[in-house]
Amino acid sequence: MRALVFDGELRLTDIPTPVLQQGQALLKMRRGGICNTDLELTRGYMGFSGVLGHEFVAEVVEGPSEWLGQRVVGEINIADGDCDMCRLGVPSQCRHRATVGINGHQGAFAEYMALTTRNLYAVPDEVSDDQAVFVEPLAAALQILEAVHVSPRDRVVVIGAGKLGLLSAQVLRLTGAEVQVVVRSDHALPLLNKWRLPALRADDLPVNQADVVVDCTGNAAGFAAALDLVKPRGTLVLKSTYADLPQANLTRVVVDEVRVIGSRCGPFAAALSLLRQGLIDTQAMIAMRYPFEQALSAFDRAFQPGTLKVLLDF
Amino acid sequence: MRALVFDGELRLTDIPTPVLQQGQALLKMRRGGICNTDLELTRGYMGFSGVLGHEFVAEVVEGPSEWLGQRVVGEINIADGDCDMCRLGVPSQCRHRATVGINGHQGAFAEYMALTTRNLYAVPDEVSDDQAVFVEPLAAALQILEAVHVSPRDRVVVIGAGKLGLLSAQVLRLTGAEVQVVVRSDHALPLLNKWRLPALRADDLPVNQADVVVDCTGNAAGFAAALDLVKPRGTLVLKSTYADLPQANLTRVVVDEVRVIGSRCGPFAAALSLLRQGLIDTQAMIAMRYPFEQALSAFDRAFQPGTLKVLLDF
Repeated sequence: MRALVFDGELRLTDIPTPVLQQGQALLKMRRGGICNTDLELTRGYMGFSGVLGHEFVAEVVEGPSEWLGQRVVGEINIADGDCDMCRLGVPSQCRHRATVGINGHQGAFAEYMALTTRNLYAVPDEVSDDQAVFVEPLAAALQILEAVHVSPRDRVVVIGAGKLGLLSAQVLRLTGAEVQVVVRSDHALPLLNKWRLPALRADDLPVNQADVVVDCTGNAAGFAAALDLVKPRGTLVLKSTYADLPQANLTRVVVDEVRVIGSRCGPFAAALSLLRQGLIDTQAMIAMRYPFEQALSAFDRAFQPGTLKVLLDF
Repeated sequence: MRALVFDGELRLTDIPTPVLQQGQALLKMRRGGICNTDLELTRGYMGFSGVLGHEFVAEVVEGPSEWLGQRVVGEINIADGDCDMCRLGVPSQCRHRATVGINGHQGAFAEYMALTTRNLYAVPDEVSDDQAVFVEPLAAALQILEAVHVSPRDRVVVIGAGKLGLLSAQVLRLTGAEVQVVVRSDHALPLLNKWRLPALRADDLPVNQADVVVDCTGNAAGFAAALDLVKPRGTLVLKSTYADLPQANLTRVVVDEVRVIGSRCGPFAAALSLLRQGLIDTQAMIAMRYPFEQALSAFDRAFQPGTLKVLLDF
């Protein structure tokens, strides 16, 4: 089968179709989405080697009869179900987990992928492929609301108007809180206007006023801006992994008694539910789509600054 | 009156006795304690200039009749009572606060200090001067329990066996949780043994097992060790201000979904209550006492590594 492999170099190549293990289903890909993590992996993050991709919608073509023919999305953490974190009900933090297309598990950018049926979620008919491919990042945005209680009275600021920042802002505005988005350039302004989300310029921020700040930048400047924005005893949610070891003003965390909360993968069922109800605008976030055979061009496009979601059609 | 002043140089000198402002009481010092923050201030922290000192017990010698003759300790944050943080019930985070002996307010290392009566707490007869002088740092340690719910089932690790680390460990053991203390040297082992608190060696830490880690080191290595110790979804409490801008592994905060919580000043009433009940061993934490006239020698002693609390007798 055709697969997009990274092993120091990114290339489309032919590899054997996966052989199913106990408990797995064979998924035939329908659509994939390129995430910033995919871009980071091609720069060496996690030292990953193999088939890339973890945002996808697919059809089950082999496996348990109750799944056959179903259109599905898949939770990306493959948990052992047995460690202390799994027993605490947090399989996404399984001590021995593999992660689809990121660590220890083949990814979704191939004609077929094998995945444990425990990780599958059926996609309702009302949710299109274009919407369903956003389930994984939308779930990650929803994890903000699992990690933090956002009150309708809160002032919330999202830093970064990229893919994850815009999904986070869309999720946060559902709480009724006042949500603002810090932008570096103009590219996201039409979307923010459409969603009635005010934009803040990075060089003119309201100092120490926000109850909750969500940093979607993944860089030291974003973290510093977040500390400037958050009020004393406020909450700072870290939504992106950070390049290198950023210098961080931990003294300010102490003196202002800030809560810094790391947040990663989230609830797929809730993401599907919001999409089914039409509460999240994914259509406006699609920058471009490419046939899978042009995946290298798709990655080139995704690397261009300000590009929102690039899709792969299988 | 005699006062210990820092203005680039630390010296005992004569300055005018404070004139009372509206709402203040005049306090005649009985005993003071030297805090690491005092040491940092003499190295330029906060750019402070003036009378040092914020750990004290004193007698009210002038002011409202209901306070006259009382033995008191004093909350160190002077709040305006009017800003949003004060109205939220968090005067210690007042937007326009001064802080005794740290920022914008004369400190306690002088024969007399003027302080608003709003900040005073009467010391019960059962609490000695030697105990009462620990109220401020003990309250700061107790703030851990306001910031975080520590369950009796939790594994808790305190990093740093200095003054604040040992008070924090003493407070945390009252929760019934399993409390361990990371030590760099042997000096604290007799105290930890006395309190039945196991010591961990910094080079042999149980990786990612602790529900709650309290970093009392104030350095980048302490923060890194805390991230090594805390379990996924665990809580990391920052109890000390940090030198410079430490490099911090924020990616690990994201991936392990850690909660990092800054914690500063705490509840004086609860600290007095624990001391009155004899639940905190302060006597064992006194390294040395000096007459106030030998305050410079006291500071020299406090600067020696491994020194616990140095007291000043007025």
